Amino acid sequence: MKVIDGGITAAKGFEAAGVEAGIKYQGRKDMALIYSRKPCRAAGVFTSNVVKAAPVLWDKEVVAHSPYAQAVVINAGIANACTGKQGYECCSKTAQAAAEHLQIPADSVLVASTGVIGMQLPQDKLNAGVKKLVEAKADTIEAGQIAAEAIMTTDTVFKQAAVTFEIGGKTVTLGGMCKGSGMIHPNMCTMLCFLTSDIAISKELMQEALSENVVDTFNMVSIDGDTSTNDTLVVLANGMAENPEITSKNEDYDKFVEALNYINTTLAKKMAGDGEGATALFETKVINAATKEDARRLSKSVICSSLTKAAIFGHDANCGRILCALGYSGVDFDPEKIELRLENKDKSILIYKDGVMTDYDEEEASQILASEEVRALVDMKMGTAQACAWGCDLTYDYVKINADYRS
Amino acid sequence: MKVIDGGITAAKGFEAAGVEAGIKYQGRKDMALIYSRKPCRAAGVFTSNVVKAAPVLWDKEVVAHSPYAQAVVINAGIANACTGKQGYECCSKTAQAAAEHLQIPADSVLVASTGVIGMQLPQDKLNAGVKKLVEAKADTIEAGQIAAEAIMTTDTVFKQAAVTFEIGGKTVTLGGMCKGSGMIHPNMCTMLCFLTSDIAISKELMQEALSENVVDTFNMVSIDGDTSTNDTLVVLANGMAENPEITSKNEDYDKFVEALNYINTTLAKKMAGDGEGATALFETKVINAATKEDARRLSKSVICSSLTKAAIFGHDANCGRILCALGYSGVDFDPEKIELRLENKDKSILIYKDGVMTDYDEEEASQILASEEVRALVDMKMGTAQACAWGCDLTYDYVKINADYRS
Repeated sequence: MKVIDGGITAAKGFEAAGVEAGIKYQGRKDMALIYSRKPCRAAGVFTSNVVKAAPVLWDKEVVAHSPYAQAVVINAGIANACTGKQGYECCSKTAQAAAEHLQIPADSVLVASTGVIGMQLPQDKLNAGVKKLVEAKADTIEAGQIAAEAIMTTDTVFKQAAVTFEIGGKTVTLGGMCKGSGMIHPNMCTMLCFLTSDIAISKELMQEALSENVVDTFNMVSIDGDTSTNDTLVVLANGMAENPEITSKNEDYDKFVEALNYINTTLAKKMAGDGEGATALFETKVINAATKEDARRLSKSVICSSLTKAAIFGHDANCGRILCALGYSGVDFDPEKIELRLENKDKSILIYKDGVMTDYDEEEASQILASEEVRALVDMKMGTAQACAWGCDLTYDYVKINADYRS
Repeated sequence: MKVIDGGITAAKGFEAAGVEAGIKYQGRKDMALIYSRKPCRAAGVFTSNVVKAAPVLWDKEVVAHSPYAQAVVINAGIANACTGKQGYECCSKTAQAAAEHLQIPADSVLVASTGVIGMQLPQDKLNAGVKKLVEAKADTIEAGQIAAEAIMTTDTVFKQAAVTFEIGGKTVTLGGMCKGSGMIHPNMCTMLCFLTSDIAISKELMQEALSENVVDTFNMVSIDGDTSTNDTLVVLANGMAENPEITSKNEDYDKFVEALNYINTTLAKKMAGDGEGATALFETKVINAATKEDARRLSKSVICSSLTKAAIFGHDANCGRILCALGYSGVDFDPEKIELRLENKDKSILIYKDGVMTDYDEEEASQILASEEVRALVDMKMGTAQACAWGCDLTYDYVKINADYRS
């Protein structure tokens, strides 16, 4: 596997665009298009929130029942959630508009929205945006990046990644982009994430690989504990790499899963590190837990703790809060066995041993917490399972962004 | 039932004190004592956190196995959590010191701590503090208030309440004090809360009443989602009201439960309204849910949502976030039936009807959100059950307090 530049246009046959449609934001790109020259097999995972945005309902239909998918139309600014029948009709009309311009069936067009809940989307602006997107689409790396920028809301950086790998002598490419900064606590997947590949793989296996992989990648991210109404993760595969089609869980399938895991982990960490107002990526790795599920719950409980997140922002090694968060995770363990380390790229210091605080150097700990990537390494000494979760610190800017967001 | 002034010294035979012991804070009172002239029956509920502070382990023993309890020694500043054997021995030594000065058995002394996790308590300062407390104790309203002040950490106001009611021609009094401002998401009870009464009631019934009542009072409060290692709620009853002892669930029992519910609700709301950095008490009332448990989960999910809390701080009626929080609560419902109102003492406006945003007046909504007590009223239209939960807004000051707390 080789990491390469680019994102959604890295794989063969994929085009993208980003344009200014004036949906809600002014003076910036706010609509994006992904298009594949060949029809794609599609797999997707969506929010588990009972309140599902209209595009989520639309996309679930397309992924489950359409013979294939060939395009995705995305807007930023308005989420099209809690919008009733009018919201769903908007999805249908937007897909129809894209279908006409692209000369493809409307039921092969996915739609996605992110932004404020409750407001209706302006259909005329969407339609005009779709027309501009189709005119602007291109298969360049630049076009992919423009699309990744157009779907941002409170994100401060665009997020993309791509890799190539070999299957049956053919080079296969998998790339992706995502956005997400607030209202991030995916329960099925991230807020909006789109992966494209030229791989030939059966729809069932692609869905299985995706559903399994999100559990340890996007589902291990939390910025604020709020599971969005719009979480969407879709993979499109057009088969243009001409590899022998993957139809069973063989070595080739494992290669695909490895690439998928790399892209998802990379995008998940980028999302966590760019959490609203964040100054640091905060990773918690739990090792030697009794079960994998225990390790997941323990690590996620720590990165979700407001008190721990605020302590990281303050560069204060108040690590009792980490032990506290482990304790209320719902997992049973022996508090008197726990070992806790704080780490960055260069250093690792022991803060708790056998559940009791060590005589560590406060200044050294504070230096670690001032890093861009901070890690808590927790040894439960209960078994052999491990898991990683990713979040960020809690800052004044998080409050500022979310007290002001709509206005 | 009649609301009266005072707190833990309101009931007959109870004395209290607060003194400066220099445990961690300087220049303020940081230790408190509750003492009953007669031995008490005790009931208690404690944190469900796997990481339990030493005083929680000590108090659970006393409540479960001691024939009676007669005093409580409390310190603020250091939590005595994650302190291993030394921490537990500290509880034992502190109880012994109190026992000597008060001439009561050591196993009738409860201890409680609140503050930073990980640090060991200075035993000499505790012992000196205990001596001063015993010398200073008094049965006045003022003494109760000084104790309520001494147990504060980041609280901005002391919290107490008291009522009287009649049983068998005798006036019975129930009073209490609590503290709690951060790390508040009780799963069994609040951080530290002490109730005192001169009622005569069997230990079993008192425990049953307490365990049932916390579910709809303290357990419905959240300030930051962090369930403390130290949560403790204890009731002491010395029987000095000389009412006919309550030994069955009769009318008298119902009167006790009514008083208990009033005191617990009052203290729970005071705690929520005084959340770290909070500018508003945020109540969410869910009505017409399918089951009581659904109503509890739905209302608590809303008051825990960081995005909703930040929107309240910004006086921005971004109520899609409330629908979103209902949606990820884990409760199933029909999003297209929901009705949502924002209310304060004077006004009530409809924001969502049948799951879709109404054409409400933004300025009016913003005015409601600027109140000291803000209420979201959610009609699920799924059944007849209801519940209330209490939290607060998320502010710059919450971040400031918790980024700085230890230093």
